[in-house]
Amino acid sequence: MSRFGRATAVRRLEEGRYQAELDGGFGFDEALNGGYLMAPLLRAAVDVSSHAHPVATSANFLRVARPGPAEVWVESRKTGRTAAVFRVTLAQDDRPVVDATVTTGTLDPDATPAWSGERPPMPPIDACVAFDAGERDRGFADRVDTRFDPATMGWLDGRPTGRPESRAYFRLREDHEPDAFALALAVDALPPVVLNTGSSGWAPTVELTWQMRAVPAPGWLTLYGSGRLVNDGWFDEEVEVWDSAGRLVAQSRQLARTGRGDRKAPRD
Amino acid sequence: MSRFGRATAVRRLEEGRYQAELDGGFGFDEALNGGYLMAPLLRAAVDVSSHAHPVATSANFLRVARPGPAEVWVESRKTGRTAAVFRVTLAQDDRPVVDATVTTGTLDPDATPAWSGERPPMPPIDACVAFDAGERDRGFADRVDTRFDPATMGWLDGRPTGRPESRAYFRLREDHEPDAFALALAVDALPPVVLNTGSSGWAPTVELTWQMRAVPAPGWLTLYGSGRLVNDGWFDEEVEVWDSAGRLVAQSRQLARTGRGDRKAPRD
Repeated sequence: MSRFGRATAVRRLEEGRYQAELDGGFGFDEALNGGYLMAPLLRAAVDVSSHAHPVATSANFLRVARPGPAEVWVESRKTGRTAAVFRVTLAQDDRPVVDATVTTGTLDPDATPAWSGERPPMPPIDACVAFDAGERDRGFADRVDTRFDPATMGWLDGRPTGRPESRAYFRLREDHEPDAFALALAVDALPPVVLNTGSSGWAPTVELTWQMRAVPAPGWLTLYGSGRLVNDGWFDEEVEVWDSAGRLVAQSRQLARTGRGDRKAPRD
Repeated sequence: MSRFGRATAVRRLEEGRYQAELDGGFGFDEALNGGYLMAPLLRAAVDVSSHAHPVATSANFLRVARPGPAEVWVESRKTGRTAAVFRVTLAQDDRPVVDATVTTGTLDPDATPAWSGERPPMPPIDACVAFDAGERDRGFADRVDTRFDPATMGWLDGRPTGRPESRAYFRLREDHEPDAFALALAVDALPPVVLNTGSSGWAPTVELTWQMRAVPAPGWLTLYGSGRLVNDGWFDEEVEVWDSAGRLVAQSRQLARTGRGDRKAPRD
């Protein structure tokens, strides 16, 4: 089993109650990645459900999660032929850390879209930038292989683009092809889009909702991050995830807080 | 008090438990509008909270709501200086009808955006189309004043545009200026965007998440509805709400089921 598989596995303790072991290797310093935290929660929901896929997940990040033991509690709210709804909580020390509502359904891997928007432009992967691992383990950054669109990385050198945007190719560094749980990781894997409007520092996610729209093909995922408004300390970040077969497989929006020490950036 | 005010009012019964009376006048035939159903639920959450605004709301529509008595149950999940999180349920006959998670915060009405995207194009209101009330009360359509962008109404005459889109100016027909609760109505007020990709019939919302981004100015709201994918019986609908002062005040995405009798429409 891959490290991601182990790090997101859940073991059923009793009806609606699961054990997980959070892996500090999926964090940035002290803070575990929000996308990573959704994965065990989704595994438990899918285990309870008669449907195969988490088609809609809304998550609220209540407290900082710590590496180590956790539980996942699943409460069924509606069971239907097309969809089922669950309230799911990731808890540590009997306190909720992440609250989520998960809608499950079963997506047909062979479905042909009745309509699809256009895939946004992205430079070829060879024109993108990797930040290779050094001697020290960097946590999350060393679990995933991310190739950034250089046009959205100006913030690194003090030259933010002035627009909330972030784009990259993405896969796990190990042998784990894209699935629902890797998509949960993908929708929260980009550097915050507000780094390109002059914000800096940690930008904590308050609420994140994502939809799984199709079963992803093996290979690279492409992540397109954007935003619409930075106002009063809050910003939105939208991420579209496209698979290697050129299909839109996931959509997300999160509401987050801007980091301290904001500078005002020009209006688009 | 306006009819909308009365129709969404909640009366506190005890800590975390409120009484509401759902008004059939906010429905289409038998089904009450989903945006309308969120309003009493948000009033109860804001009443419990020390913060003034529902900055993020995710709602799952579990069962069809009926006009008449309902209760709203509010459970506090986190109380913070910047934001608080509540699980809120609208129930009838002791069964959950709508499950929601509501994040509250307090938005500064005088905040100047650090960055804002562009307002999408929209024809002037005089060039838009109203569908005036007849003798028979049409429910929701008679509670609101909606002026449709004629470019997105071709589906009415069997000439859908081929893209998921729907745009309109919007206000309540009575003296109730935009506030958080009217925004909840606004994000679910447009004809489903898939009517323009050849779908027809009722398109039930499964999950809807919306963010309140600013305190709206008095006057007309403008609703911009779009979508990215119609696949396997599911579609997404995004709505941006802009106020009369030209500011983005709300964003939403819903995942819904396409109506029966779909016809395939060309790819964009």
